[in-house]
Amino acid sequence: MSSPPVLLLCRLFPGTFTDVAHRFRLLDFYASALPIHAFLAAVAAHADPPRVVLVFGGGPIPVGAELFDAVPSLRCIITVSAGTNHIDLRECARRGVQVANAGGIYSTDVADYAVGLLLDVLRHVSAGDRFVRRGLCPEQRGGDFLPLGSKIGGRRVGIIGLGSIGSAIARRLEAFGCVVSYHNRRRREDVAYAYFPTATDLAASSDVLVVACALTAETRRIVDRGVLDALGERGVVVNVARGANVDEAELVRALAEGRVAGAGLEVFDDEPNVPPELWAMDNVVLTPHQAIFTPESMADLSRVVLANLDAFFAGEPLLTRVKHRGGIPNPLPDCVPAVYDAIKSVFQKTIDHSLTWCW
Amino acid sequence: MSSPPVLLLCRLFPGTFTDVAHRFRLLDFYASALPIHAFLAAVAAHADPPRVVLVFGGGPIPVGAELFDAVPSLRCIITVSAGTNHIDLRECARRGVQVANAGGIYSTDVADYAVGLLLDVLRHVSAGDRFVRRGLCPEQRGGDFLPLGSKIGGRRVGIIGLGSIGSAIARRLEAFGCVVSYHNRRRREDVAYAYFPTATDLAASSDVLVVACALTAETRRIVDRGVLDALGERGVVVNVARGANVDEAELVRALAEGRVAGAGLEVFDDEPNVPPELWAMDNVVLTPHQAIFTPESMADLSRVVLANLDAFFAGEPLLTRVKHRGGIPNPLPDCVPAVYDAIKSVFQKTIDHSLTWCW
Repeated sequence: MSSPPVLLLCRLFPGTFTDVAHRFRLLDFYASALPIHAFLAAVAAHADPPRVVLVFGGGPIPVGAELFDAVPSLRCIITVSAGTNHIDLRECARRGVQVANAGGIYSTDVADYAVGLLLDVLRHVSAGDRFVRRGLCPEQRGGDFLPLGSKIGGRRVGIIGLGSIGSAIARRLEAFGCVVSYHNRRRREDVAYAYFPTATDLAASSDVLVVACALTAETRRIVDRGVLDALGERGVVVNVARGANVDEAELVRALAEGRVAGAGLEVFDDEPNVPPELWAMDNVVLTPHQAIFTPESMADLSRVVLANLDAFFAGEPLLTRVKHRGGIPNPLPDCVPAVYDAIKSVFQKTIDHSLTWCW
Repeated sequence: MSSPPVLLLCRLFPGTFTDVAHRFRLLDFYASALPIHAFLAAVAAHADPPRVVLVFGGGPIPVGAELFDAVPSLRCIITVSAGTNHIDLRECARRGVQVANAGGIYSTDVADYAVGLLLDVLRHVSAGDRFVRRGLCPEQRGGDFLPLGSKIGGRRVGIIGLGSIGSAIARRLEAFGCVVSYHNRRRREDVAYAYFPTATDLAASSDVLVVACALTAETRRIVDRGVLDALGERGVVVNVARGANVDEAELVRALAEGRVAGAGLEVFDDEPNVPPELWAMDNVVLTPHQAIFTPESMADLSRVVLANLDAFFAGEPLLTRVKHRGGIPNPLPDCVPAVYDAIKSVFQKTIDHSLTWCW
């Protein structure tokens, strides 16, 4: 009996790819010469069409009705991301398509990275590095160097989203003597941090605002102009969630006008595009959605993907199943087939470990 | 009665300067038009010559016999640094000159910064920032992007110098799940971290080696080729102590040859000069000896400098007195008067908050 087919619409790191290819028959968009529409049509016409698809996490590729119409055999989506903001969960529920994500495997990596961004922005680490690499010695420095940094201990850090990532950030920051508070949909009874019922209230009581929530209809642009103004001109934003959690245009404006002091941004609204206004700012740290790229997390991803595939084909519950919770549907961007094709041509050219931005 | 004179051979941040100038009559090299030799001769010829001098911390300006010969009235040195490697403590003891440093006021700032450097090197924060600021989108990325980062949890971090800074680094890294061990002159009975009697043994058991010791004759180039080889090709060096604690030429060679994986360097052997071979490396973070520059530490410095001045003039023990411990004398570089004059001309041109490098 041949191994079951699995539709592969994302690139996997070599180790994960090998692990999955060893056990399943991969219908790999990236190994095909066809553009996306023709590829999906060919896949759908297979004698044994795929019931599972592996997809990227977020970025420009939404997963919803168009994909199911193209490949009606699909019954299971496995995304390599923790977030499922790119998946139309309501449509999945309506069609009986199960969804699994990467579970919590990235939480510590993202939390560690968030603390790194916070330290960098408050203490000018990458700005200092730029200064040194420009070969500046004191004579040339003049007025162009950096103002004083900010002590870490005692800083009031407000976390939007005290889930697994936010909680891990909080624990780390406690070791630095930060004063942690948070905003969630609901107060958590199991933590002693101060709770604020709105992001604006949290920002008004924070020196640093860390965005660590899932992207949902409710949290889209949760950091808007009002929140930024509440944070104020000495405040700093750190975003390790999704670009769309922040009103990026308002943040750029607030930074340019000195209405907030700085930002550490690992995610952007329209990745891989980063607003060019930010490139010349010394009070921001801009990184390419790379927090999860550690060998350990990639190995964990192999395990969780294989466990979900095994569970699905055994008719058992998915290991990291994501359920539609009702409520306001999360708006998805239009599915643009050209994006798939463009990304494919990029990834076919690049080395395998350079898979940020479309994760 | 006029306030007592204080010789000022360093620049102070504006707040500290104002605090000290308010209480004492400053003989300020930087406010004088004279070069250093003529200035010191004029100071020594005063009717009421200074008994106290405030000096920079380390850098190119040693404090020893030449200064005392030039201004024989000096009985007290107050350095704005924690380290006293630039002061000839034996000569001070011989001449009955007391020495005070900044005490432990910088320890948390330096510890926070060390963790920031460690996170940056292991997770490519500033390298990612460079990538974004170059405006690279995936098409241009090709093979030039970064390899996978390293998970923080579980990393074995060896700390050379488990004093106040090293201990604060250890506490922070515990929150990330790192496994901490250390090398000191002697085992500490009050901590549970594994102790290694030599830096080489520590390096052989570490993924990351953090240098956080005072610079003494014993710790000069404590990280030498043997230690780097013991650390190995997957190892990372973080230095927040003094540049001379590391054999910089060997470190540059090891990085260039891939015999160590990366480095986060806040201090250098010949500041403000940074070996140009490092500038193009993506696996190093290079910052301009800026870790202590926070408003809080500068305010603490005002307090500790004033408290020491008050104590000295009251004939009471200095608050943060540093004693000569005997043992091998710490070798000082030659005192080069031209360096004072060059630094003076630099600082007279620059804005007051740009005082890194010669601290």
